[in-house]
Amino acid sequence: MDRVRVVGRRILCGILLSAWVLLPASGWGAPLAPLPAPKAQKPAQAELGRRLFFDPRMSGDGGISCATCHMPAKGWGDGQALSAGYPGSKYFRNAQTLLNAAYNKRVFWDGRLSGADLPTLVRDHLTEAHFMLVDGRLFPERLKQVPAYVKMFKEAYGGEPSFGGSLKAISAFLHTIASRNVPFDKFLKGDKKAISAEAQKGLALFRGKAGCAACHNGALLSDGGFHALGVPENEQIFQDPLRHITFRRFNKVIGVPNFMNLRADPGLYVVTKEEGDRGKFRTPTLREVAKTAPYMHNGALATLEDVVAFYDKGGGSGPNKSPRLKPLGLSADERNALVAFLKSLSGEAVSAKEPKIPDYEIRKLGDN
Amino acid sequence: MDRVRVVGRRILCGILLSAWVLLPASGWGAPLAPLPAPKAQKPAQAELGRRLFFDPRMSGDGGISCATCHMPAKGWGDGQALSAGYPGSKYFRNAQTLLNAAYNKRVFWDGRLSGADLPTLVRDHLTEAHFMLVDGRLFPERLKQVPAYVKMFKEAYGGEPSFGGSLKAISAFLHTIASRNVPFDKFLKGDKKAISAEAQKGLALFRGKAGCAACHNGALLSDGGFHALGVPENEQIFQDPLRHITFRRFNKVIGVPNFMNLRADPGLYVVTKEEGDRGKFRTPTLREVAKTAPYMHNGALATLEDVVAFYDKGGGSGPNKSPRLKPLGLSADERNALVAFLKSLSGEAVSAKEPKIPDYEIRKLGDN
Repeated sequence: MDRVRVVGRRILCGILLSAWVLLPASGWGAPLAPLPAPKAQKPAQAELGRRLFFDPRMSGDGGISCATCHMPAKGWGDGQALSAGYPGSKYFRNAQTLLNAAYNKRVFWDGRLSGADLPTLVRDHLTEAHFMLVDGRLFPERLKQVPAYVKMFKEAYGGEPSFGGSLKAISAFLHTIASRNVPFDKFLKGDKKAISAEAQKGLALFRGKAGCAACHNGALLSDGGFHALGVPENEQIFQDPLRHITFRRFNKVIGVPNFMNLRADPGLYVVTKEEGDRGKFRTPTLREVAKTAPYMHNGALATLEDVVAFYDKGGGSGPNKSPRLKPLGLSADERNALVAFLKSLSGEAVSAKEPKIPDYEIRKLGDN
Repeated sequence: MDRVRVVGRRILCGILLSAWVLLPASGWGAPLAPLPAPKAQKPAQAELGRRLFFDPRMSGDGGISCATCHMPAKGWGDGQALSAGYPGSKYFRNAQTLLNAAYNKRVFWDGRLSGADLPTLVRDHLTEAHFMLVDGRLFPERLKQVPAYVKMFKEAYGGEPSFGGSLKAISAFLHTIASRNVPFDKFLKGDKKAISAEAQKGLALFRGKAGCAACHNGALLSDGGFHALGVPENEQIFQDPLRHITFRRFNKVIGVPNFMNLRADPGLYVVTKEEGDRGKFRTPTLREVAKTAPYMHNGALATLEDVVAFYDKGGGSGPNKSPRLKPLGLSADERNALVAFLKSLSGEAVSAKEPKIPDYEIRKLGDN
């Protein structure tokens, strides 16, 4: 019922907004559009999720929280090329922003989970050996010895702290981390002064000569699809033992043939096992992109200027490279205009006050 | 076939030694006897096991090894009343010595695993959330990036580093940690000067007035059975949140009814779920006992003197207390003699040289 209502609301929003929406430049994909309002969350559930998001007791060693790799002050990523991973491990891809994460069709750079099932995404992060490595039967017992959480679970879900409830609460919180007051959205809604003349020039290039909107379209500025760009490998994956080990184990467990001789991140191939998908990665949203350097699935490009320069020379090289990538012949002014446009896609900071972590306080026996 | 041969060899040893073996004092249990020779291990396998035993990369966070809680210098225990457990957790029972562990019929204080299957015992320790929390698919990938291990696995098992192979190798190593040159064994074999006159007086009490040999019999000085002694609870389990949480989760996962209101360690009950087994714990071996303070399943008694005094007053109180426990009315001299006897059960230090932990060195691609 809830989902039906939300879909209905989104369709309604689409109709109301259609007057201001820019049609796609070249017949590809969905038009650029303001972000629909986030799905309303029950405040008690989202607030519980916020508290759990920052609590390191959600990890196996009680030392790292979701916020360790998804920091509000770093655009909800970690600001590193490759994300840190669980102690004793290091991960082999860039930690993506969680801003607007609830709008994704598929999640992870290889699209291995559905964006429609956020609790499963949260579970994967909490339990995986390279992320937070928590035992799903241990951490609810931890939460039960924190009176503040017992009270909050009762209010949010009418019961005791649980694994499933924690996944749902964090998912509810993720829905609240959405772009707010983005200049480009105001522009789309008719305020022609909301973005600079240079950014407007960038928009024209984005939809025209530079062809960005072919894949970066729709309200997220992402087609949700998978494309190979020939981004250079991040050699740390093949030189840093901890990253290499995590990379090998991941590819082994997900069933990549001949995983022991991989010399490149297979991308979407890990899901489909189709050679034609090797090297393809999910088009990331460009909303809030100015806050989430470094860029690409492996953090290989440090700045937005580097990203624009990468596309200007027609991308890199590698298997299955998208035929859409061609040298663009952009002038310095044009590259700057594109960067100005990309910067207009960030709104005011979406922060979440870091809560004080509540202390353990053993429950009175008999109250359990 | 191997098992048949070992059993045959043990029977043969029993016959050869029978001339020296002391008959049980009171018709209970197996006679006191020298420890049979440990089952011979392939040196390449036991040596690999020794190296892995000390390597912290066997744990989830790469920070703790088997030797963290089973230190050769602490009689292969950790010298604590309650063992440390994985970071972010604390365990709720005493870390038992690994000396002679390969001779046990059942393992853990509650007997929840078979002593005949050491690889499963090792697996439990490596993977459990409260012990080492390693992912069984991650750590062989770690080992494969260490050339020394690749070489050793090839020699020991003819293949690559694997999870199962690691469990077997550590099990092989455990077989080598056995009592050597224990004075009491020499005494049993006829050297009447091997233990002091006071210890001989203690032995007589042990087998007679004090009744210890009723349960502490056989070559291990343990009947391998389960008895309730009324040992006082270690209140840390109910006061330290990290211990309490581990205790609750363990009892929940193993299916103890009403686990949330437990006010005492259920012992064997967790396995059988029979009320008559509540509070019963496995009779520990007394071999090497002088090295493994503090004592009892929860470390509640600090010294051998405390243990003898505990039995002298007839044990503690609690459900299912063994009818064998009665006030003994021992004199100070008698208590001292019993302690002298217990000390004669320790042999020369069984040490294992702590290896230098080999560095990671990424394998050449193509050699994998």
